[in-house]
Amino acid sequence: MIQISSVLEGNRLALARLLTQVENNSPEGRAALAELFPHTGKSHLIGVTGAPGTGKSSLVNQLALHYRKQDNKRIAIVAVDPSSPFTGGAVLGDRVRMRDLSGDAGVFIRSMATRGSLGGLAQTTAGMVQVFDAAGFDIIMIETVGAGQSEVDIARLAHTTLVVEAPGMGDDIQAIKAGILEIADILVINKADRPGIENTEKALRSMLELAHPTERVFKHHGTYISDGQGLKDNERDPLSPAIAQGDISFWLPPIQQTVSIDGKGIAELAEHIAKHAAHLRISGGWAARERTRLGSEMEALLQEALMSQFREKVSGQKIDQIMSQVFERNLSPWDAVRHLMDNNNGRAK
Amino acid sequence: MIQISSVLEGNRLALARLLTQVENNSPEGRAALAELFPHTGKSHLIGVTGAPGTGKSSLVNQLALHYRKQDNKRIAIVAVDPSSPFTGGAVLGDRVRMRDLSGDAGVFIRSMATRGSLGGLAQTTAGMVQVFDAAGFDIIMIETVGAGQSEVDIARLAHTTLVVEAPGMGDDIQAIKAGILEIADILVINKADRPGIENTEKALRSMLELAHPTERVFKHHGTYISDGQGLKDNERDPLSPAIAQGDISFWLPPIQQTVSIDGKGIAELAEHIAKHAAHLRISGGWAARERTRLGSEMEALLQEALMSQFREKVSGQKIDQIMSQVFERNLSPWDAVRHLMDNNNGRAK
Repeated sequence: MIQISSVLEGNRLALARLLTQVENNSPEGRAALAELFPHTGKSHLIGVTGAPGTGKSSLVNQLALHYRKQDNKRIAIVAVDPSSPFTGGAVLGDRVRMRDLSGDAGVFIRSMATRGSLGGLAQTTAGMVQVFDAAGFDIIMIETVGAGQSEVDIARLAHTTLVVEAPGMGDDIQAIKAGILEIADILVINKADRPGIENTEKALRSMLELAHPTERVFKHHGTYISDGQGLKDNERDPLSPAIAQGDISFWLPPIQQTVSIDGKGIAELAEHIAKHAAHLRISGGWAARERTRLGSEMEALLQEALMSQFREKVSGQKIDQIMSQVFERNLSPWDAVRHLMDNNNGRAK
Repeated sequence: MIQISSVLEGNRLALARLLTQVENNSPEGRAALAELFPHTGKSHLIGVTGAPGTGKSSLVNQLALHYRKQDNKRIAIVAVDPSSPFTGGAVLGDRVRMRDLSGDAGVFIRSMATRGSLGGLAQTTAGMVQVFDAAGFDIIMIETVGAGQSEVDIARLAHTTLVVEAPGMGDDIQAIKAGILEIADILVINKADRPGIENTEKALRSMLELAHPTERVFKHHGTYISDGQGLKDNERDPLSPAIAQGDISFWLPPIQQTVSIDGKGIAELAEHIAKHAAHLRISGGWAARERTRLGSEMEALLQEALMSQFREKVSGQKIDQIMSQVFERNLSPWDAVRHLMDNNNGRAK
C-alpha cells in the first residue's frame, strides 16, 4: 500500500517504494500515478544525453551540486543505465554518485537498468519523472547513455535537452552528432581540458549551422543581411548579439565547454539552462513540449489497452494456429494480421 | 508498380525501387512484401553492432569482400545509420563503401537513416531484410551503430549477432559492453593493432564469464569439475576443448581479434560465423530465432492495425477533447485511456 500523502510530502522511503512499483509497472504503481497526476507539471525536466565516454554522469553530479549550493533547489536524477541487471551496473552507478551527493536530503538519485523495466523504457521513465514532479522536486535530470531512437524518445520527455560531447572521440561520432544535434537545446563539450577541444567546437559549430539554417535567424532578425555565405564569424555565437541583449524569443543552441572534474563551466551551463527555461515560457515552447510528452505517453497507454483487449477477445489457440501458418510461410504476416483482426471484431471465418 | 518477378530475379533497379517503397511504408511496398513472403527464409542474417568508433563499417566491408572472394556468395548490407537526413550521412556512407565494393553485382548495399523511416526502425529493417531474402541473397548483414534498445530490437532480427569492440575506448563503454554482451553470438575486437588490446580482451573475457556462468558449461560437460572459481584458464577459451573437437551443440561466444584495414582475422571471423550457423541448425536455435523474429514483426503489425481501427471508431474531436482535459491535468492519462476505450467499444458516456 503506497501512501500518496507521504510521497507528496517527499518522504524518501515512500518515494523509493513507489519508484519500484512504477519500474515494475504494477497495478498499485499505476493507481498511484493516476492519483499523483494532478500534482504534476511544476518541475523543470532536463534531459542529458550523448555518446559513451563523454562523462555525462560526472557532469550531472556537478550540476546537481551547483543547484544545491547556489539555489538550494531540490534535485532528482533519473539515470537510464544500459548495463544489464546481472552486473549490478545500476547499483554501482548509484554508489559512485553517492560519494558526492550522499547525505543530502535535497537530492534523490534513481538508476534504472534499461532491460529491467517491464513497461517500456520511455514509459517507465515518464512514470518516474511524474513521481518526482508530484513530490515537489524543482529540477529533474534524466540521463541517458548512447545514441539511438530510445534516446530521442527520452529526450522528448524533457523541457531542456543537453547533448554532451568530448574532444577526441572516434570518426563514427561525427555521424551521431548530426543525428542528436537536432534534439539539442544546449551543447556541452565536456572534458574541455583535453587536447582537440578546438576541433570539436569547430566541428559542432559547422554542424549547428547545418541543423539551424541562417534563415531562422534572419526571420527573427530582419536587420541581418545574408551574404549567401551564412552568418559571419562574429554573428555566429548564438549568445550574441540578440540573446546577450536579453532577447530570448528565439533560441539557437549555445555551446558550453565544461570540465566536470573541477566544475569549470558548470555555473555558465546552469545559466544557459535557466535562459532556455525562460525562452520556453515566453515562446510557448514549454506548453508545446508538455503536450508532446503527454501525447506520446497517452499513445503508449492506449496501445497497451488495445492490445490487452485484443488478447481477451482472441483465443491463444487461434493466435498460435495463425502464427504456425506464418512460421511455415503459408501465410504472410500482413494476411495473418488481417485474419486476427477479423477474429477481434467477431467476424471470424 | 513493382515487378515481383524482377525482384525475385535479383534485378537491381526493381530491388532499389521496392526498398524505397518499404522505407516509405507505402501500400505498394506492403503488398509486395506479402507477395514475396513465401520466398523468404533462406538467407543467413548477420547483425553487426557496437559502440561508435569501433570501425563496424570497415569490418562489414571486409567481410563482404571475403565472402565474395572465397565463396562467391551474394551479399546484401543494410546499414542503419543514425545520421540525420539533412547531412546526407547515409548517402555519404554508401559512397565510401562503394570504393571497395562498387561494380560487384553480387553485393547490394542499402543505408537507412534512422529518422527517415516511417514505419519504425525495426519494422523497416525487417521489411528490407525480407526483400533481400526473397531476392536470393545468401548473406544479409545488418549494421547498427550505438547501444540501446533499438540495437537489441534489430539484433533480434539476426541469426548471428556480432558485437564489435575496439581497444582504448572510454570507461562508460564498460557498462555498455555488459548490456550488449547478452546479445552477442560472436565478439569482435576490431582495430586489434592498437595499444590496449590485451586489456580489452581480458575485460571482455571476464564479462563473458558473468554473462555465461560456468553452470552452463557444466550442464553440457559433466566431466568438468567446479573448483568454485569458475573455469580454469585453459578451459576458458570457448573454442576449446569442446568446440575445437567439433562439438557445436552448445555455444559460448568466441572472441575474435581483427584489423579491418588489412583484413587480419577476417577469415577466422567468417569461420566463427559459419560455425554459429551450423550450431543454430543443430540446436534448433535457427527455427527459434525465426519464430522470435516473425513473432515480433506480427506484434508490430497487429499494434498498428488495432490503432488504425481505433482511429476509425473514435472521432478526432473526441480524442482532442479528452487530450485537453489531460493537458489541463483534470484527467490522468490512465483515466483518459479508459474513456477512450469506452468510446472505442461503443460504450461512450
